[in-house]
Amino acid sequence: MTVDAQALQAFLDRLTADIHARHDWGEVANYIPELAKVDPAQFAVSIALADGRLLHAGASARRFSIQSVSKVFTLACVLGRHGEQIWTRVGREPSGTRFDSILLLEQEKGRPRNPFINAGALVTTDALLTGRAPREALSEVLAFLREAAEEDDIHIDPAVALSEERTGFRNIALANYLKSFDNLQNAPELTLGTYFHQCAIEMTTDQLARAGRIIAQLPGVSPLLTAEKARRLNALMMTCGHYDGSGDFAFRVGLPGKSGVGGGILVIAPGVASIAVWSPGLNLYGNSHMGTYAAEQIAKFTGWSVFG
Amino acid sequence: MTVDAQALQAFLDRLTADIHARHDWGEVANYIPELAKVDPAQFAVSIALADGRLLHAGASARRFSIQSVSKVFTLACVLGRHGEQIWTRVGREPSGTRFDSILLLEQEKGRPRNPFINAGALVTTDALLTGRAPREALSEVLAFLREAAEEDDIHIDPAVALSEERTGFRNIALANYLKSFDNLQNAPELTLGTYFHQCAIEMTTDQLARAGRIIAQLPGVSPLLTAEKARRLNALMMTCGHYDGSGDFAFRVGLPGKSGVGGGILVIAPGVASIAVWSPGLNLYGNSHMGTYAAEQIAKFTGWSVFG
Amino acid sequence: MTVDAQALQAFLDRLTADIHARHDWGEVANYIPELAKVDPAQFAVSIALADGRLLHAGASARRFSIQSVSKVFTLACVLGRHGEQIWTRVGREPSGTRFDSILLLEQEKGRPRNPFINAGALVTTDALLTGRAPREALSEVLAFLREAAEEDDIHIDPAVALSEERTGFRNIALANYLKSFDNLQNAPELTLGTYFHQCAIEMTTDQLARAGRIIAQLPGVSPLLTAEKARRLNALMMTCGHYDGSGDFAFRVGLPGKSGVGGGILVIAPGVASIAVWSPGLNLYGNSHMGTYAAEQIAKFTGWSVFG
Amino acid sequence: MTVDAQALQAFLDRLTADIHARHDWGEVANYIPELAKVDPAQFAVSIALADGRLLHAGASARRFSIQSVSKVFTLACVLGRHGEQIWTRVGREPSGTRFDSILLLEQEKGRPRNPFINAGALVTTDALLTGRAPREALSEVLAFLREAAEEDDIHIDPAVALSEERTGFRNIALANYLKSFDNLQNAPELTLGTYFHQCAIEMTTDQLARAGRIIAQLPGVSPLLTAEKARRLNALMMTCGHYDGSGDFAFRVGLPGKSGVGGGILVIAPGVASIAVWSPGLNLYGNSHMGTYAAEQIAKFTGWSVFG
Repeated sequence: MTVDAQALQAFLDRLTADIHARHDWGEVANYIPELAKVDPAQFAVSIALADGRLLHAGASARRFSIQSVSKVFTLACVLGRHGEQIWTRVGREPSGTRFDSILLLEQEKGRPRNPFINAGALVTTDALLTGRAPREALSEVLAFLREAAEEDDIHIDPAVALSEERTGFRNIALANYLKSFDNLQNAPELTLGTYFHQCAIEMTTDQLARAGRIIAQLPGVSPLLTAEKARRLNALMMTCGHYDGSGDFAFRVGLPGKSGVGGGILVIAPGVASIAVWSPGLNLYGNSHMGTYAAEQIAKFTGWSVFG
Repeated sequence: MTVDAQALQAFLDRLTADIHARHDWGEVANYIPELAKVDPAQFAVSIALADGRLLHAGASARRFSIQSVSKVFTLACVLGRHGEQIWTRVGREPSGTRFDSILLLEQEKGRPRNPFINAGALVTTDALLTGRAPREALSEVLAFLREAAEEDDIHIDPAVALSEERTGFRNIALANYLKSFDNLQNAPELTLGTYFHQCAIEMTTDQLARAGRIIAQLPGVSPLLTAEKARRLNALMMTCGHYDGSGDFAFRVGLPGKSGVGGGILVIAPGVASIAVWSPGLNLYGNSHMGTYAAEQIAKFTGWSVFG
Repeated sequence: MTVDAQALQAFLDRLTADIHARHDWGEVANYIPELAKVDPAQFAVSIALADGRLLHAGASARRFSIQSVSKVFTLACVLGRHGEQIWTRVGREPSGTRFDSILLLEQEKGRPRNPFINAGALVTTDALLTGRAPREALSEVLAFLREAAEEDDIHIDPAVALSEERTGFRNIALANYLKSFDNLQNAPELTLGTYFHQCAIEMTTDQLARAGRIIAQLPGVSPLLTAEKARRLNALMMTCGHYDGSGDFAFRVGLPGKSGVGGGILVIAPGVASIAVWSPGLNLYGNSHMGTYAAEQIAKFTGWSVFG
Repeated sequence: MTVDAQALQAFLDRLTADIHARHDWGEVANYIPELAKVDPAQFAVSIALADGRLLHAGASARRFSIQSVSKVFTLACVLGRHGEQIWTRVGREPSGTRFDSILLLEQEKGRPRNPFINAGALVTTDALLTGRAPREALSEVLAFLREAAEEDDIHIDPAVALSEERTGFRNIALANYLKSFDNLQNAPELTLGTYFHQCAIEMTTDQLARAGRIIAQLPGVSPLLTAEKARRLNALMMTCGHYDGSGDFAFRVGLPGKSGVGGGILVIAPGVASIAVWSPGLNLYGNSHMGTYAAEQIAKFTGWSVFG
């Protein structure tokens, strides 16, 4: 698929202006005190193309907390390390419930529906951690991101991690609940500490779009991830990447995506492009409000929907 | 995407032989007496390609009850007739529950999660019926299928419809439950009668693959469906087409699909091909066991996964 | 327990005046059109004492639709006819859900939690009906009530029964759902017809209080019910008699009771008295708002709480 | 009600022999390692009568972990200290779910159904703790029990408390989940520590029966608890005292009761007697298997059922 990069850049500039003019930012996540301080009236977009170019508009050099977007990369590490074994501990079906729901976990005896809801991501992080110290597990995720993005300046924001450790009661509940079903191998506080730090990774949309190229399997990317595994990550992102708003994202955007409560979304056009958008105000499902809108407009403009 | 039709035909022949050799057919649906009589040890596959060719293998000229595959076409008719209004009455999120579940309907006050679970399909059929006699509504679905398939020999099997009317207590419950929330506009027995007849449409995989070309938006298809609507149907088929096995189908096959309890699955490779498989034995989610296997093998052989 | 009947009568008169002065009637059930017409500003109370006296105040000679209060008497008939077998088909635990909930029925595979929620009452009525025509089953319930009340002028209001048959979609859903689990022995429409007619029995509080003496096992009552069975009915009324407001009724009143959506409540002081109250306005749980208040005040005045 | 104490003593002796002869003990709780060591083949019963006599049979001088039976006394303390305010934080309806369920807590936004399921008991303990150190709160519960039982030799077993602190992941999950809804006022680990210690109180059936006299409001008991509050505790014990087996206990025994996972049950015949039974093997609902049987036989023999 040939892309007219000049036309696309002009479109991204118009889109950024349009989004600022709308003054319809949604609300920032208020359950993580450190994130509640962020000004919602911000937007950034970056697109990495198959030919190696990186387009961007808005605050594409500003760092934000990638939060749940990290779950895609943790899962990539775990699939690399443990292969398909992880599916004995976590499913791959959309949950139809909120990102932090504990309800199905009781009905389904401690096996989370998928690795992108919080309960499932805790299991994935736990698998990554097993046999190692938290620092080593986190180093692996960071190393993966840095190699994928071809950039070393990617770090964890300890203030955000600490903020979550102090107030993340629902995640603490989920981890202990999983442990009660023997679906955590490590002490809950160790898994939680690793999880909170992984979620506190900071990136710019430029960095995130470049890191996503490996999931889009663009030409010339690092061989960190096989095509088969990238395909599977994309399938999971399509059906489960936006919690109980996944169907709506697929319907409106038509591309695999993974959102984070920090307002970032990684959107993949397989073989064509890797897109990162960021706007910290959220919609009712906990996904970036203007980020979703931007993804929809980009898909419409480019015709990149996988659904024809 | 160029397809080596000769190689694909040879592959379909091998696949058919392989499936017969496996003797792993699953179990036929036993809650519809008329379907319970069908021999599970059957398989058919047909693929309509963009260049107009139709490949097939196995019992591709044998008629089977398309059952829930019909929901895609009813929804297409309703989108044509009523546009996007239907989304006020039914959602577009995966449900995470069985095809005939009533549980979420209570929690969500009579608004089904999506148009492909039974409750949602009853709402779609009800919308198609409003203002008309059941016969007219059914004629529209049949006319749509016939024009899409370019073939007139597509009919309803009255014995199957009657069998469901006599024993479909769970669907009768769903329709009356919807009515109690004012989310049916017609008398429950009228909507149910139309629904049971729509599900009792009989087709061959050849016919179904040809009808699916309109959803795949292959070159030269009837303009019955806009590209925009086809894209949306594909998105819904990807996230909701296999009930609580939708995530698994996306993960394994990577293509939008819609299954029916009669053992048929319509699988779409947007812009590339329309695939119909049939094997009446079902897996635990109520989807064709060997049909799913066949779809997975075809996707692997052709590389048609939308996920790269 | 000796009762000062004169003081109690004076109290009932004051209570009736107090209730009319409060102008806090709640709302009449609006889902049964025939009941929606009833004026909520009405109140009646009757108390049958162990010594044979019947006290009353308010509109105690006005007939009202006993609705779910009938479930106690149907269950009494079924226990007489089938003994404890009924417990294979229905539980005896509080449900924690609304009277017309279908949710637990899915999770618990068609076995209702108790015989006083609608799903369980449908099973009880179905058991009463088996092997007979609806007319005969209804005759048995009426004959039981007439013998218990020692009064023949107790009848079914056909307009109310018809009103429910036309609009009782949720009950139709429940019956068909039970049938889908093979937990109805008769055709759903037969069981439903019998159920709607049983619920449409009309009585005055005088009649209901007299009929309740058999459950209170007051001296000299008809031997229709063994002491053992009366005890068990009382236990069920205590834990399940007010749907998801049962705990609150036990907490505030301290006596077994069974409410109906027509505004009646039968309250039992075992061995001491049978109390019937009626006021058609309902609270949030679907139980009579002023009826509950009256029961609470009577229990406080008399000290009849079984809890000391 | 006059009681033939001699006949009752003879009955208790026969009952104890009968229970030992049955060899049908159930299984001891295995999720608390320290309790899993207990021999299930044990039984004790003690009955405190209104005339001051204490009857007993079996191992009535052996200490056991009272576990959830403590919830009745903590609630009594909280009602004394805070009055009816506690009902803004916890309901008084049967839950219809397991003792450690977290499911309803999500649906009902952190307000537990009643103070006897684990989530509700954590809230009660949290209320008792507020403004004080855990040691003081625990001292109040112990002081209450000692005064009620008129005996000082009642203590906490620190090994059991520690065992729960190390493995009580589900309770840790519940406490953190409550905290996420702002329905804990103290740090989860403080409330949990207090809760685990309160549950680890050890008593004999003699002591427990004597302590229960205050809830039965037997003549001459300590004025620690008003008659009104005792009545309300009894109502809660009747509808919620045995988790999702409460309806069955009411049906079979007909008396308010509260069970603990250590195998103890406190059963109250208001105004007549306080009964403690103990047998560590549990039934499917987590209530003492032979304890329930004994309570049923005692109620049958004595005719103490509150239901007539």
